[in-house]
Amino acid sequence: MKYKLTLAGALSAALLTAGPALAQEASPEVPANSVYIFNTLLFLIGGFLVMWMAAGFAMLEAGLVRTKNVAMQCTKNVALFSIAALMFYLVGYNLMYPGDDGWIVADVIGAIGAKSIDEVGGNDLATGYSSASDFFFQLMFCATTASIVSGTLAERIKLWPFLGFTVLLTGIIYPIEASWQWGGGWLSDMGFSDFAGSTLVHSAGGWAALAGALILGPRMGKYKDGRINPIPGSNLPLATLGTFILWLGWFGFNGGSQLAMGSLGDVTDVSRIFVNTNVAAAAGAVAALVLTQLLYGKVDLTMVLNGALAGLVSITAEPLMPSQFMAIVIGGIGGVIVVLAVPMLDKFKIDDVVGAIPVHLIAGIWGTIAVVLTNPGTSLGAQLTGIVAIGIFVFVVSGVVWGILKMTMGIRVSQEEEMLGLDSAELGMEAYPEFGKGSQFV
Amino acid sequence: MKYKLTLAGALSAALLTAGPALAQEASPEVPANSVYIFNTLLFLIGGFLVMWMAAGFAMLEAGLVRTKNVAMQCTKNVALFSIAALMFYLVGYNLMYPGDDGWIVADVIGAIGAKSIDEVGGNDLATGYSSASDFFFQLMFCATTASIVSGTLAERIKLWPFLGFTVLLTGIIYPIEASWQWGGGWLSDMGFSDFAGSTLVHSAGGWAALAGALILGPRMGKYKDGRINPIPGSNLPLATLGTFILWLGWFGFNGGSQLAMGSLGDVTDVSRIFVNTNVAAAAGAVAALVLTQLLYGKVDLTMVLNGALAGLVSITAEPLMPSQFMAIVIGGIGGVIVVLAVPMLDKFKIDDVVGAIPVHLIAGIWGTIAVVLTNPGTSLGAQLTGIVAIGIFVFVVSGVVWGILKMTMGIRVSQEEEMLGLDSAELGMEAYPEFGKGSQFV
Amino acid sequence: MKYKLTLAGALSAALLTAGPALAQEASPEVPANSVYIFNTLLFLIGGFLVMWMAAGFAMLEAGLVRTKNVAMQCTKNVALFSIAALMFYLVGYNLMYPGDDGWIVADVIGAIGAKSIDEVGGNDLATGYSSASDFFFQLMFCATTASIVSGTLAERIKLWPFLGFTVLLTGIIYPIEASWQWGGGWLSDMGFSDFAGSTLVHSAGGWAALAGALILGPRMGKYKDGRINPIPGSNLPLATLGTFILWLGWFGFNGGSQLAMGSLGDVTDVSRIFVNTNVAAAAGAVAALVLTQLLYGKVDLTMVLNGALAGLVSITAEPLMPSQFMAIVIGGIGGVIVVLAVPMLDKFKIDDVVGAIPVHLIAGIWGTIAVVLTNPGTSLGAQLTGIVAIGIFVFVVSGVVWGILKMTMGIRVSQEEEMLGLDSAELGMEAYPEFGKGSQFV
Repeated sequence: MKYKLTLAGALSAALLTAGPALAQEASPEVPANSVYIFNTLLFLIGGFLVMWMAAGFAMLEAGLVRTKNVAMQCTKNVALFSIAALMFYLVGYNLMYPGDDGWIVADVIGAIGAKSIDEVGGNDLATGYSSASDFFFQLMFCATTASIVSGTLAERIKLWPFLGFTVLLTGIIYPIEASWQWGGGWLSDMGFSDFAGSTLVHSAGGWAALAGALILGPRMGKYKDGRINPIPGSNLPLATLGTFILWLGWFGFNGGSQLAMGSLGDVTDVSRIFVNTNVAAAAGAVAALVLTQLLYGKVDLTMVLNGALAGLVSITAEPLMPSQFMAIVIGGIGGVIVVLAVPMLDKFKIDDVVGAIPVHLIAGIWGTIAVVLTNPGTSLGAQLTGIVAIGIFVFVVSGVVWGILKMTMGIRVSQEEEMLGLDSAELGMEAYPEFGKGSQFV
Repeated sequence: MKYKLTLAGALSAALLTAGPALAQEASPEVPANSVYIFNTLLFLIGGFLVMWMAAGFAMLEAGLVRTKNVAMQCTKNVALFSIAALMFYLVGYNLMYPGDDGWIVADVIGAIGAKSIDEVGGNDLATGYSSASDFFFQLMFCATTASIVSGTLAERIKLWPFLGFTVLLTGIIYPIEASWQWGGGWLSDMGFSDFAGSTLVHSAGGWAALAGALILGPRMGKYKDGRINPIPGSNLPLATLGTFILWLGWFGFNGGSQLAMGSLGDVTDVSRIFVNTNVAAAAGAVAALVLTQLLYGKVDLTMVLNGALAGLVSITAEPLMPSQFMAIVIGGIGGVIVVLAVPMLDKFKIDDVVGAIPVHLIAGIWGTIAVVLTNPGTSLGAQLTGIVAIGIFVFVVSGVVWGILKMTMGIRVSQEEEMLGLDSAELGMEAYPEFGKGSQFV
Repeated sequence: MKYKLTLAGALSAALLTAGPALAQEASPEVPANSVYIFNTLLFLIGGFLVMWMAAGFAMLEAGLVRTKNVAMQCTKNVALFSIAALMFYLVGYNLMYPGDDGWIVADVIGAIGAKSIDEVGGNDLATGYSSASDFFFQLMFCATTASIVSGTLAERIKLWPFLGFTVLLTGIIYPIEASWQWGGGWLSDMGFSDFAGSTLVHSAGGWAALAGALILGPRMGKYKDGRINPIPGSNLPLATLGTFILWLGWFGFNGGSQLAMGSLGDVTDVSRIFVNTNVAAAAGAVAALVLTQLLYGKVDLTMVLNGALAGLVSITAEPLMPSQFMAIVIGGIGGVIVVLAVPMLDKFKIDDVVGAIPVHLIAGIWGTIAVVLTNPGTSLGAQLTGIVAIGIFVFVVSGVVWGILKMTMGIRVSQEEEMLGLDSAELGMEAYPEFGKGSQFV
């Protein structure tokens, strides 16, 4: 996602519609109104594709937890997406883009809610897209950040403290750090480069998850008697489906972050982003496929799935500039990272149920650094500054929030409840009441 | 969905492309041919998103029935969507839009089927979109109406009578009542307002389901010895997936019902519809989350899912005019309705397997009434007239059809078959032959 | 998919934007830059819909194999899609379109990867779309061909030889035969007509699968003591989901193959293709529904699913020209073909686990022949020549490759491994570790 153009007062709509080299020929040919429609359409298509990623996270996580925690994982995923929608509207959007409409909730109601068909005016025409479509697209990035957290902390965290954290993450934490770059803040001034959010979304979600995992502790039985006990997921085709959904949604995530397709140059860039996003995922999957075969003598499906996702995260910081060959390299290294990082986390007894920290945090850092390989204007110093600043901010604030939640409401279920499973203990229901134990119903 | 413009002879293509305030500036800037392409594209994207809702209903229902009826529920959902495609083409479309092409099947073949690349003529240019794209979009609404019925009547209705009802619902019942509003009939003349079909699609499907449920009776064991026995669904992640699919598809359902995006005003309205649709679903989910916690001390996942769907149904009658704040209120009340209405239906011993009547019928009525809160020009009287007229028509005609089917072919399986499950009894197969009872196969 | 226009040097961008009859009025009204954006957008939307079909194949196949082979089937589907992305980039694209950029890998890197926003030049403007978007769309067809193979050979083929075959299929075999038509080769010169690939994609995949099935042999226990033992799929709702995904994705497959939507005529044609594609699938499903009831006295869900898919394959060779009525006839016959062909294959002891040969190969042949019913300019001779030429080429080359793989690495797991299931034997994991046998984990 490029620096949000509404904040760059100096940029005119004409500049938005085409890169410099094309300005002469493109501006007169694509009428301003058509540009507006194209750009808005990109936000809408991109937005619904990223919304679909919420289903991807839900399926991935539901497939990677044990039967007894599946209904809870579904509940958390539907709830966190819903909370993100409410909080980003109530607080987050204005916090992220303070220049737009003031910081007051009522302003948001006015700005996003009440503009009717007759009221498209100079401001919207100047930015080149409907502000509601932009809101829709931005919201989905906020929600994605929250989706990352739920997988790591699965199978032991209480429902309501998790939702409480989600309220703060989507309403406050994400909007503040994202505003540093996309709200025209100090990171963007400094030259930090993170096209669609390897750091701002994925690493940020990963840092929040890591803070939670450290404070929450590992699941019972995961690290016992000095051994690491694998706890396999209960439904691998569901995890596979979730991965495919995320892969599909990522075209919207990265492609939509071009923020415009109303010119030859923009729509060509969106096309190249689609190609690079796809091939980076493919390279991540193949890297994990080959590496697990070499290291363990057997291919590991969950590693292949996480390899594809790590490839996607890796290319997210810069999906446009790399050649396909470089996109393969960047995504492939992402896949390698996952295969190596998962056992490393286990060594530190950090229990990440679905592998979200390797995929989103570590591959996100890699992707952000890799930008310097393809973008001559981006300095390693700026990239490291952004990575470290956002890392410290999200990790520390999340840690404080998790700590407060732990001391007040408590964040972990009892040992009996964890043994029984969160579905029965907290929800009083089962995800698959007839499987495994046989049906106890009519 | 607004009053279908092909019927409004007085409206020119120029008026279609922009609201009054924009007519002067928009018409000269977006060329008529581009407008045509944009509008057609909206129908195509909206249409494939609504088509995807058929998969959502299938997964939701497959997840909420017991293992022994899952294959049958899948069969019904694939079959009803296919039947809707055939019947809407053969009869329904002409019945719904009688002014277009006469009432004869052959005309449909001609009008929709045989127009080639060389034949786009004055008529299509005047309406501002391809008639085939409009047919595609309208068909999906007809199919959605049928999808609503299958969930309520699951686990005890015979396959073929159900499909017979679907033939009449998609070929005759839905097209007639929908023509009263969208075909330029008496309801639209009267000022009834139902943007995307809270009443015309969702309540209508709900009334057809209610008539069927009353005539069919509850499942064995559901109401026994004065007690209500919960019969849990067999696969809650599948139900969760179905809900996410429906949520995604609803952007096409409501957004596409703007019927145009070839002007600044239209595409801005589509954007606002996306935002309001999303936040209403979120509010419905959160309302059900909080309310089930307060009422029962435990969150109920299926209520949360149905809460989101009720939020979506509630905002469907008017997704454009409300501010985001009002959309939250409207969707949130939809979520509350579901939590309260599900036990109420049980009190009347109306056995609705998936909760389709609360979600689609009752929240649909609420949403249709709520239009008066945000649209100054819409009268409560007109809304109630539409609700009652369509309710009586669909309920009575459906009741007669179900009654005739009951007396002739019979609509309910035998007690032995219901006990055994429809999969084994009617299809001779199992949805999950290796789960629950263990594998009896090689 | 029409003959690729970049190769037809004589065609100008003006011709691309409209059929002859419209050239006069369309060219001046839709500006060339808008045409470029519309066409590129069609490739992007079409491409992500066809990418989604990879998930459809994965779910269909995961649902139709036994529990013990589900994780392996997921692994193969993720891996084959990833391999296709790499091989089509490294070799296939240049092999398929040799006129474009030379045959050297480095050229592809240059042509597809390195074009930046400033470099859209005369060549792209002349073709009327971004070459990266075209690459993205074409790649998905290559991947689809590979997806077809994995289902037939499931439950007994070793992972790595299967992936080795996929490398050759996606890098060499598919690009060569597809170039005969879409690369401007001898079949297109001869008048062969295959709009979106009934023969080039679906039959080709089917021939590769058939060659593999013959060399690999049937699963243990499938044909024993002169009897045919049905081996039911383990998760029918997953197979249903896969079918719905494929149905949705097919709108991109057929609609995107119009290759343009930047004119009234083109977008109208895309609309008609959507309508015909949908109704052909519906007719195939209903045909299989009715026919299984008549033949066996019971509806067979997997036949209904395959009937819908066969309807889709049948209409793929010509989704534009048929009236809706003819599309129903063509798709319906596809559904009949599946119901009759599945037992026929069993008579020859060809073990096709998911029915891919009837659906893709046989219905693909039917669809290619059916073109002569609706396209006056297409000769039966040309169609049969294409069917036979591609059939022989793919079948023979695939057979040789399978044979070499069999003699070198071996392609079939041992009897013990097949009994145990590929998940445990080759991957060392289970897809559903807690179902069926009960949980052996904490």
